[in-house]
Amino acid sequence: MKIIETKLKDLYIIEPTKHGDHRGWFYESYNKQAFEEKGLYLNFIQDNHSFSAAKGTLRGLHYQLAPKAQTKLVRCTKGLIFDVAVDLRDGSPTFGEWYGLELSALNQKQLLVPKGFAHGFITLSENVEVQYKVDELYSPEHDRNIIWNDSTLAIDWPTIDTPILSAKDEKAPELASAELNFTFTG
Amino acid sequence: MKIIETKLKDLYIIEPTKHGDHRGWFYESYNKQAFEEKGLYLNFIQDNHSFSAAKGTLRGLHYQLAPKAQTKLVRCTKGLIFDVAVDLRDGSPTFGEWYGLELSALNQKQLLVPKGFAHGFITLSENVEVQYKVDELYSPEHDRNIIWNDSTLAIDWPTIDTPILSAKDEKAPELASAELNFTFTG
Ligand SMILES: Cc1cn([C@H]2C[C@H](O)[C@@H](COP(=O)(O)OP(=O)(O)O[C@H]3O[C@@H](C)[C@H](O)[C@@H](O)[C@H]3O)O2)c(=O)[nH]c1=O
Ligand SMILES: Cc1cn([C@H]2C[C@H](O)[C@@H](COP(=O)(O)OP(=O)(O)O[C@H]3O[C@@H](C)[C@H](O)[C@@H](O)[C@H]3O)O2)c(=O)[nH]c1=O
Repeated sequence: MKIIETKLKDLYIIEPTKHGDHRGWFYESYNKQAFEEKGLYLNFIQDNHSFSAAKGTLRGLHYQLAPKAQTKLVRCTKGLIFDVAVDLRDGSPTFGEWYGLELSALNQKQLLVPKGFAHGFITLSENVEVQYKVDELYSPEHDRNIIWNDSTLAIDWPTIDTPILSAKDEKAPELASAELNFTFTG
Repeated sequence: MKIIETKLKDLYIIEPTKHGDHRGWFYESYNKQAFEEKGLYLNFIQDNHSFSAAKGTLRGLHYQLAPKAQTKLVRCTKGLIFDVAVDLRDGSPTFGEWYGLELSALNQKQLLVPKGFAHGFITLSENVEVQYKVDELYSPEHDRNIIWNDSTLAIDWPTIDTPILSAKDEKAPELASAELNFTFTG
């Protein structure tokens, strides 16, 4: 397993190791010990799986307020997505900056999104499955979102003019009026 | 989430709850709290993902000896398998008995295989993906297998005369000469 730093502190790309043989392949998509050997102490307690039928479906930008903030380990197991994380930690030198990359069933990359970030993705193919692990349970009362095309964030989504959104994400607030309670701890 | 008993004690079928909308669907494939509410206290630390290209690929029967015995939460996320668990716990009233069921990307069922069971599956379609969670790390020194067509176990595999096996599983021992160190605790 490889852990690769990004330009945003605490946001990592994970590349698992795949074993092939005449039957097919096998890989450990998560291994707590391997993470701890790299200094990442996490306690995942929920796994999620979503399916998006159409290309251009955008789920995001989502986060849960503290104390229910979630670390997310995201991967795409069918199709292709552009996955995005945004630093929302007060006092962070990269507050408001975003990082995005393609995750696919083929590249088997994962994005480890720390607490205090918003997260979202857009599907770049049809029939997309995304799976992710979280270390705090889903809490609708702490669930918040920011509009995908917020002008301050200026995320460079791969060109899709009118993405398919949930009713909730259609009317998400802008960053300027979003409720935030995260602190950068250095 | 539904938890359904089988004829073998401690072996359960899990049925998650799926939420559909105009984008596609979403479900929690695992939720530690939901398991604990049903009295199942587990601590999963590794996730595995395998791909089998051909129909008739048989992976099994596998287990890890104590103290590295694994609880496994198994699901099929692409294609169709017949999944089997065998009770190998000394003193169990159902020692040597097997239970099998179809798991597929469509039925979204999961099998919760307790410590002290052997586990295996045969693919009933091409291009099969199986994912499972375990509560002890992989330990090659404790890894053991039993031959899939052991005459005492007499597993009623869906008719495939010559399954595709790994080199290791080709030469697996029979139950009679297998090393076992599990105790049924009631
Ligand atoms: C997030 C979540 C939703 N649900 C339910 C609530 C709804 O009925 C249905 C769909 O919920 P939505 O919030 O619309 O799903 P969504 O796919 O838009 O939300 C997800 O988007 C990802 C980009 C984020 O990283 C995730 O944290 C999550 O917010 O699933 C759960 O049961 N558990 C969960 O953990
Ligand atoms: C099981 C396992 C294998 N591996 C490696 C070792 C090999 O290089 C490669 C394939 O290993 P194999 O044991 O041949 O894979 P397999 O798919 O035949 O084994 C699996 O079969 C399931 C039915 C059982 O429930 C599992 O517990 C496991 O035994 O993957 C890991 O890195 N971690 C693991 O946890």
